[in-house]
Amino acid sequence: VSQTAGPTVALAADEARRWTTDALVSAGASAANARTVAHYLVLADLRGVETHGLVRMPLYVARMQRGDLDGTADPEVLTDRGVTALVDGCHGFGQVVADRAMRLAMERAGSSGVAVVVARRSSHFGAAAGYTQLAAEHGLIGIATTNTAPVMPPTGGRERRLGNNPISIAVPRASGGPIVLDMAMSVVAAWRIRLAADRGEPIPDTWALDAEGRPTTDPYEAFQGGGLLQPIGAHKGYGLAFMVDVLTAVLAGGAFGADVKLLHDEGRLNTSHFFLALDPGAFGPTEEFDERLTERASQIRNTQTSPDTDRVLLPGEREASLKVEREQTGIPYRRDIFDGLVELSTQLSVDPPAVSAAEPSGG
Amino acid sequence: VSQTAGPTVALAADEARRWTTDALVSAGASAANARTVAHYLVLADLRGVETHGLVRMPLYVARMQRGDLDGTADPEVLTDRGVTALVDGCHGFGQVVADRAMRLAMERAGSSGVAVVVARRSSHFGAAAGYTQLAAEHGLIGIATTNTAPVMPPTGGRERRLGNNPISIAVPRASGGPIVLDMAMSVVAAWRIRLAADRGEPIPDTWALDAEGRPTTDPYEAFQGGGLLQPIGAHKGYGLAFMVDVLTAVLAGGAFGADVKLLHDEGRLNTSHFFLALDPGAFGPTEEFDERLTERASQIRNTQTSPDTDRVLLPGEREASLKVEREQTGIPYRRDIFDGLVELSTQLSVDPPAVSAAEPSGG
Repeated sequence: VSQTAGPTVALAADEARRWTTDALVSAGASAANARTVAHYLVLADLRGVETHGLVRMPLYVARMQRGDLDGTADPEVLTDRGVTALVDGCHGFGQVVADRAMRLAMERAGSSGVAVVVARRSSHFGAAAGYTQLAAEHGLIGIATTNTAPVMPPTGGRERRLGNNPISIAVPRASGGPIVLDMAMSVVAAWRIRLAADRGEPIPDTWALDAEGRPTTDPYEAFQGGGLLQPIGAHKGYGLAFMVDVLTAVLAGGAFGADVKLLHDEGRLNTSHFFLALDPGAFGPTEEFDERLTERASQIRNTQTSPDTDRVLLPGEREASLKVEREQTGIPYRRDIFDGLVELSTQLSVDPPAVSAAEPSGG
Repeated sequence: VSQTAGPTVALAADEARRWTTDALVSAGASAANARTVAHYLVLADLRGVETHGLVRMPLYVARMQRGDLDGTADPEVLTDRGVTALVDGCHGFGQVVADRAMRLAMERAGSSGVAVVVARRSSHFGAAAGYTQLAAEHGLIGIATTNTAPVMPPTGGRERRLGNNPISIAVPRASGGPIVLDMAMSVVAAWRIRLAADRGEPIPDTWALDAEGRPTTDPYEAFQGGGLLQPIGAHKGYGLAFMVDVLTAVLAGGAFGADVKLLHDEGRLNTSHFFLALDPGAFGPTEEFDERLTERASQIRNTQTSPDTDRVLLPGEREASLKVEREQTGIPYRRDIFDGLVELSTQLSVDPPAVSAAEPSGG
C-alpha cells in the first residue's frame, strides 16, 4: 500500500526544508527550532516514511496556535551525571528535544563509550530513525525509542493501554551508510487500517481486535470503532511495548498511558523518549568491527530467496535507496497533501512550496 | 503445550542444585563454575522454563567430555574502559560468562549510571532472564541478549541465517519482585515444532517456512526437513534479530552465522552476548521511579479482559508465581528427563537426585 499512489507533485528537498522552516517561523517557532524540525520531516519524506514528513505540518501548526506546542522552547538538561542525563522537553517540538538528547548522548559516548539520555514533556518526534542515523553517521551505534498514545491492549486485554512504541537501532558502516531498523510494536500502523476502511476493504485478522478484544477483519471495527491494534508476536510485542514505556516515561518521569493523549486528538501530546549511544571503538579497533559487520551483512544479503522474492534487503535498505533517488528527483507529494501545504502557506503568509522541474519517480 | 504433562518426579530446588553441582564437578568443572551453572539451570526450572533447566545436563556433560566446553575456564576481561568492557568467555560455560559479564556491568552502572559489557567465545547461556533478574534484584534495569545458531531466514530468504536471538529486559520494583521480559525473535521455539512432529499434529502456517521458503503446516517440513522458523512481525523480528547479531558477535568480535554451530549438533557452540545495566537512580529519586512503575503496572493489570481471558498478566508474572510455588512444592521433572539424570549420575559416580517427599503440583 503506497501512500503516494495517484497524481503527485515533486518538491526538491532543499525547497521542502525552506518552506517548512518559513512556515514554522511564521507560526511562532524560533528559527533554530524550525530548521531542526524541517530537517527531520524532510528526511522522513526522503526515506519514504511519509507519515512522519510534511503531512504533519497542518497538525503541528494547529498545535502551536492552540498553545499546546511551544515552538520557541529549548530543551533543558535537568540531571547530568556524565554518561546519563535527563532532559525536560518543555513541551517543545519532539524533533528538537530528540536532536538535543541524542547529541548529548553521542558526545558522552564519544568520550566514555556509552551514554543514555532520557527526555520527558516532549511532543511527536517523527521517525525514530532520524536520531539513530545521526549517531551512526558519527560512528556510533544509536538506539532511540519513544512512548506514544495508547493503541494496543496488553495480551488478553480489550482496552487501549500501550502505544505502538517504535524503536530504532542504527549501526555505522565505513561505507554504504548506516544500517537502520525502525519499527513499531504493532503488526501494522493505524493508517493502514484507516486506509482499508476508506476503501471498504477487509483486513487480515492478525492486524487488529474489535472493541471486545476479538480478532476482526472489519477495518472500521478495528480502529475508529474502538478497536485495538495487535502487537507483533502477541505477548512478545506487548512485553516490548511495556518495556519501552518503562525506559521512557517511567524512567524520565513523564506521562504514560492515557495521559500521553489520544492519537490525532485535539489535546497536547506529552511523550517521553530514550536515547542510547554506544561506541564500537570502546570494545576494539573500529576497522575490525567494520569488517565483521560487512561480512555479516553480506551473508544476509546473499541468502537464497523464497519463490516470491527478488532479493533480500538489509533493515532500512529500501529507505536508504529511496533517499538517494529522491535527493536527485525530488520528493513526490500526493496532490491533496500538497494542496494542504499551499493552503497553510496562505494562512501563514509564506511563499508556497515551489514545485520542482524534475519529474518525480513515484512512491 | 506443557513439557511436564504426564507423570513427574519432584526435586527440591536445593537438591537439584546439589546434584547439578556434584555432577558438573565430577565431569571436570571447577566447584565455583558448577555452582553458578547449577544456580541458573535450577532458576530456569523454578520459573517453568524447562528447556533451559536440568534437561540440558546430559548435553553439557557430553560437551565437556568431548573438550568443546571448558568447565574450568574463568572469563577474562580483555578491554575495560570503565562503563564498557569486553569479556573473553574462553569457551567456558555460558552461565559463568554471563554471570561475570552482568556483574561487571552492574558494578559499573552502580557507580556511573550505565554500563555495557559484551562477551565472546561463550557457550549456551540458558535463560537470558537469569542475568537481567540479577541486575533488577540489585535495583538496576538489566538488558541481556545473545546470538544463537541460525534457525530463521531474513525476510524473503529461504536459508537459515539468523538465530532466534533472545532478549531479556528486567525492571526492579521496591516490592513484588522484578518485572521480567524474556523472548526470542521467532514466533515459537523449535521444540514446539518438534513436539508437533512427534505427535503428528499440524502447526499454524505462521510458525515456520519449508525449505523453499513457503509457509507450511507440516511440522516435519518446518524444521527437521530443513525448514525455517518465522520471525515475529515478519521484517520486524528479522530486523531485531539482525541487530542482536550486531550488538553481540559483531561488537564483541565473536562468531556469527553458521560459525555459531547448528542447534543441538555435536560441535562446539561459540556464542556472544550483550549486557546492559542502567541505574534508575541516575535520573531521579528511585522512590519516584518505583511509584510510577507501580502505577503503570497497575494500569496494565487492571485492563478489562477479552472474552477468553481471566486476567491480564505483566511480563514474567506467570514465571514469578511458578517460582514461588515450586520453591515450596519442589520442581516437577518429567519421568524420562529424571531417568536421564539418574543415568548421568551413574556415569559420573555421583549420588542421583533425591526425590522430594512433597507432591509436585504439575507443570
